[in-house]
Amino acid sequence: MKNVKERLAELRGAMAEAGCHAFIMPSSDPHSSEYAPLHYTAWEYFSGFSCENANLIVTAEEAALWVDGRFFGAADAALKGSGIASMHMGVKGVPTVEEWLGEHLPKGAVLGYAAETMPLKQARELSEVCRKAGARFVSLPLVDKAWTEDRPALPTTPAWLLSREYAGKTPAEKLAILREKLREQGCTAEIVTTLDSVAWLLNLRAADVEDTPYALAFCYVNEEDAVLFMAEDRLAPEAKKELAEAGVTIAPYDGMPAFLAENKKEETVLIDPRSLNAALDLALRGNKAYSVVEDSDPIVLLKAVKNETELACTRAAHLRDAAHMVRFQKEMEERLAAGETLRETDIDTILHKYRGSDSRFITESFGTIAAWGPNAAMMHYAPKVGADAEIERHGFLLVDSGATYYDGTTDVTRTFAVGPLTEEEKLGYTRVLRCHIDIAMAVWKEGATGGELDMIARQAMWRHQLDYRCGTGHGVGHVGAVHEGPHSLRPHNAVEFVPGMIITDEPGIYTEGSLGVRIENELVCVEAGESEYGRFLRFEPLMYVPIDLTPVLVEELTREEKEWLNGYHADVLGKVGPLLSEEERGWLKKKCAAI
Amino acid sequence: MKNVKERLAELRGAMAEAGCHAFIMPSSDPHSSEYAPLHYTAWEYFSGFSCENANLIVTAEEAALWVDGRFFGAADAALKGSGIASMHMGVKGVPTVEEWLGEHLPKGAVLGYAAETMPLKQARELSEVCRKAGARFVSLPLVDKAWTEDRPALPTTPAWLLSREYAGKTPAEKLAILREKLREQGCTAEIVTTLDSVAWLLNLRAADVEDTPYALAFCYVNEEDAVLFMAEDRLAPEAKKELAEAGVTIAPYDGMPAFLAENKKEETVLIDPRSLNAALDLALRGNKAYSVVEDSDPIVLLKAVKNETELACTRAAHLRDAAHMVRFQKEMEERLAAGETLRETDIDTILHKYRGSDSRFITESFGTIAAWGPNAAMMHYAPKVGADAEIERHGFLLVDSGATYYDGTTDVTRTFAVGPLTEEEKLGYTRVLRCHIDIAMAVWKEGATGGELDMIARQAMWRHQLDYRCGTGHGVGHVGAVHEGPHSLRPHNAVEFVPGMIITDEPGIYTEGSLGVRIENELVCVEAGESEYGRFLRFEPLMYVPIDLTPVLVEELTREEKEWLNGYHADVLGKVGPLLSEEERGWLKKKCAAI
Repeated sequence: MKNVKERLAELRGAMAEAGCHAFIMPSSDPHSSEYAPLHYTAWEYFSGFSCENANLIVTAEEAALWVDGRFFGAADAALKGSGIASMHMGVKGVPTVEEWLGEHLPKGAVLGYAAETMPLKQARELSEVCRKAGARFVSLPLVDKAWTEDRPALPTTPAWLLSREYAGKTPAEKLAILREKLREQGCTAEIVTTLDSVAWLLNLRAADVEDTPYALAFCYVNEEDAVLFMAEDRLAPEAKKELAEAGVTIAPYDGMPAFLAENKKEETVLIDPRSLNAALDLALRGNKAYSVVEDSDPIVLLKAVKNETELACTRAAHLRDAAHMVRFQKEMEERLAAGETLRETDIDTILHKYRGSDSRFITESFGTIAAWGPNAAMMHYAPKVGADAEIERHGFLLVDSGATYYDGTTDVTRTFAVGPLTEEEKLGYTRVLRCHIDIAMAVWKEGATGGELDMIARQAMWRHQLDYRCGTGHGVGHVGAVHEGPHSLRPHNAVEFVPGMIITDEPGIYTEGSLGVRIENELVCVEAGESEYGRFLRFEPLMYVPIDLTPVLVEELTREEKEWLNGYHADVLGKVGPLLSEEERGWLKKKCAAI
Repeated sequence: MKNVKERLAELRGAMAEAGCHAFIMPSSDPHSSEYAPLHYTAWEYFSGFSCENANLIVTAEEAALWVDGRFFGAADAALKGSGIASMHMGVKGVPTVEEWLGEHLPKGAVLGYAAETMPLKQARELSEVCRKAGARFVSLPLVDKAWTEDRPALPTTPAWLLSREYAGKTPAEKLAILREKLREQGCTAEIVTTLDSVAWLLNLRAADVEDTPYALAFCYVNEEDAVLFMAEDRLAPEAKKELAEAGVTIAPYDGMPAFLAENKKEETVLIDPRSLNAALDLALRGNKAYSVVEDSDPIVLLKAVKNETELACTRAAHLRDAAHMVRFQKEMEERLAAGETLRETDIDTILHKYRGSDSRFITESFGTIAAWGPNAAMMHYAPKVGADAEIERHGFLLVDSGATYYDGTTDVTRTFAVGPLTEEEKLGYTRVLRCHIDIAMAVWKEGATGGELDMIARQAMWRHQLDYRCGTGHGVGHVGAVHEGPHSLRPHNAVEFVPGMIITDEPGIYTEGSLGVRIENELVCVEAGESEYGRFLRFEPLMYVPIDLTPVLVEELTREEKEWLNGYHADVLGKVGPLLSEEERGWLKKKCAAI
């Protein structure tokens, strides 16, 4: 297997041949996925570093990888000596991709990219950078040329449809809803490109992306027809039947450009430039039968507001998942107490034993993060067998994990004291807990956005000029991706929270080399009530797992925070207790004692 | 003097003559002022009700006045029996001005307005409403025709320039700053139309608007010249001299349309459609020498961020104002304790005695609100001699007042217990205090907007599904208007807070017919410090007046809130104490005791 320097040399050879001065690889795929199938992870192959939300640029002499706050530390370590600069996005003094290119593109130079794997919006921005620099922006198949060895094939996992029992609506019903929305937006058709939108629209599921139950597919929907672009033989017979009943025809995965070129019917077609790839845009603009409307994909919001069935299912999935988490914690505690040596990777093994035994289990919803001590300061630390730490008997163990079941997707983090704690550790933990509770008990007049609510979470941190370099929380898909928009608890997010939206509440503290704490529940937005002042909303927990109380500096909490915490633990016992054995329930009762 | 029905009859006569189906009067003047000179208060003359942020529409059969939450109760009471409907803006089910017009304008009808007193933005919106209804939107001089009796003349108070000692910069320096900003925005000229922008730009002050030290004037600024449109004889000789030195020439107040029509020089002129009046827009578009750029008036932000001199001056003004407030409260308490009967209007008299004796006093910054008991539930209650309440010996007295001095403008509210309180009163007061403190002690990473920070203020209220139907706070002018933008603490305000911005912090509780509490300080945005997580900002009080502690339910406050409150009172004693006599200081010490 080639090392990073050899891979880059191969790419630079292909670049020289094509007259390409610089080549950019965003962390994307033809569907603008956050997590791409391995076949498309060129930025990882050529940099040797795994991450999302990144851009890798290579020139003859230089290379640079832009990563966000979650990956600063790990990227610095991994890229050391590779000849690739680690660029910290959003940090003062670090040039953006556009600024860097502005300085590195001579007049007349070619900036290469692969149109198929670049979102139209980014392609337009880079095209503008090239225009200003007097350079050219050219789609070139250099990844295919330079990445021949060990390149994973396109995934072709079995595809199936989530039943109405779990999804609440059939593909036919969802197509009707989408067509209504398209009419409202003045459109007759839409190119649905993101995997989660296709999954929602047709209840389509597969295992094409690691830990994410989606199928690589596009969908074209107009007023009468819908075409699903994916290999037909991947679909189970009953899935084909249900799709046919919904009026959905099947075409090859790579058939969309030809389909768009051949169409003769006049259509006003909706595209979302943040997700449509640049190659499809080119195909679309080549056919005069299309008038193009650029706007948000209406499925994004339809999908984000869970229906009653989805909510009931996800509540049930969360309660079972909570029971698995309780059993895991009990086993871990007992084994540590018995003097057994446990390592970070053992955590996933124990968790998988419980979750995997669930009759509705499909997959872990992401790679389990089990990080002891200073490792927990790396937000996206992933322990590897043979290179993981032993869980020593002091400090914290952070465990961030979840699963996708047939009835819901979970994401939960608890940080456990595994021995004596320093005052700094206790204070850090208590501050994170306050941030968590302050969102969990927030009430607001309808109309508030995620950016506005995020302010409430951070007060307990900001007052001490501390912060966490990430959002407070993200949406979660239904039997789907563990990250889902458009809402989030994150500075300046402008999406209004409405009942039915699911969000994680996961503030943290990350002090490089010493401390990492995160406490995470999934919450759902619900009505708090209506008064003469209007309609009020709040969050309600979906996840009911005890929060470790041993590190809490009780005097730091407000009375309201204490009341919330005791109320939450009473609910944990009341809701999860009945799913446990008597012995387990006894253990849980102690964990849920009021403070 | 005619009554409202007679006034409306006069207007309807003029409307019929002009073939006008409906006539709209916004609460504005040629400068889009929040508080208009009396000459322009047509909506008040024809409705008989005084308010801001309103629109009055009159048809042959109907009339309706739109008011915001501050005026709901008072407008309902005042308009009863007048034949004018009281329209509550922002309340579900109440049509907006545009919706109402859409239903009331038949095809071919004329909607009349006065272009000179309507902001361009509103004129465009109404023009669009007319287009949709097939009606015409026509500027008509009906106010001048129908309001002849008792119409106040245009104000012509003496005008002067605020010295550099108080303003920090000369008109010449400010013109240079503005020209730089215009260049950045790609413009060569600007029509400066709002009174506060003209006041800031040229340090111009007068007394044309009640309680607001501004002069009715426009200014035209290009790269070389500046023209001030106002009667020259209003200016003191030294003011004329300083303006001449800054290259400012003087033209008649009503000379702007002719000036714009005659200009031959090609200019790219900046206008702000939210404040430019529709008549000036018409004059501007008639001259092909102008290219028009529509954007925010850059002075708005320049003015909002106070310079070091302005801040030092306003701090000094606030400390003296605090001493006046302390003396007022001491006198009021002693007179009430001595059994004297005091009425609401006596409060302004006592306050004016102290403030008016200040050698730098110019004017009260607004009409003093002194409201006892249920009167305090009316947010903008103004007691009138002969119709004011006696201050009974129970419940609350709310006092909202302020002054403009040569070195700063103040705005402060305290709510005093004047006798025994009910539990509801104590709880309401304590919740308002929590909201006040939560903003006062907020810390945030730079970049947060007023809309985002507003969330922090309201949590202590929203958790109980309570709210106040107004912003948490507004900007304050320097030796200027008591309300000033663009920043505010108000849902969805998108202006980022930066050091040097002044804001009021004035949450409240208003329960119709029973309870009104408001606690207000002016705060200034300052740096909190810089850490590895970025630069943090916070607020610092400008006003140091004791907050009545007798109503506080101490157990409802968090430890941090208690610490803030005790720290604040220690500061009050330390900062204001030295300005007082020994006896006064002794009284203050008791008020500032730690809880």
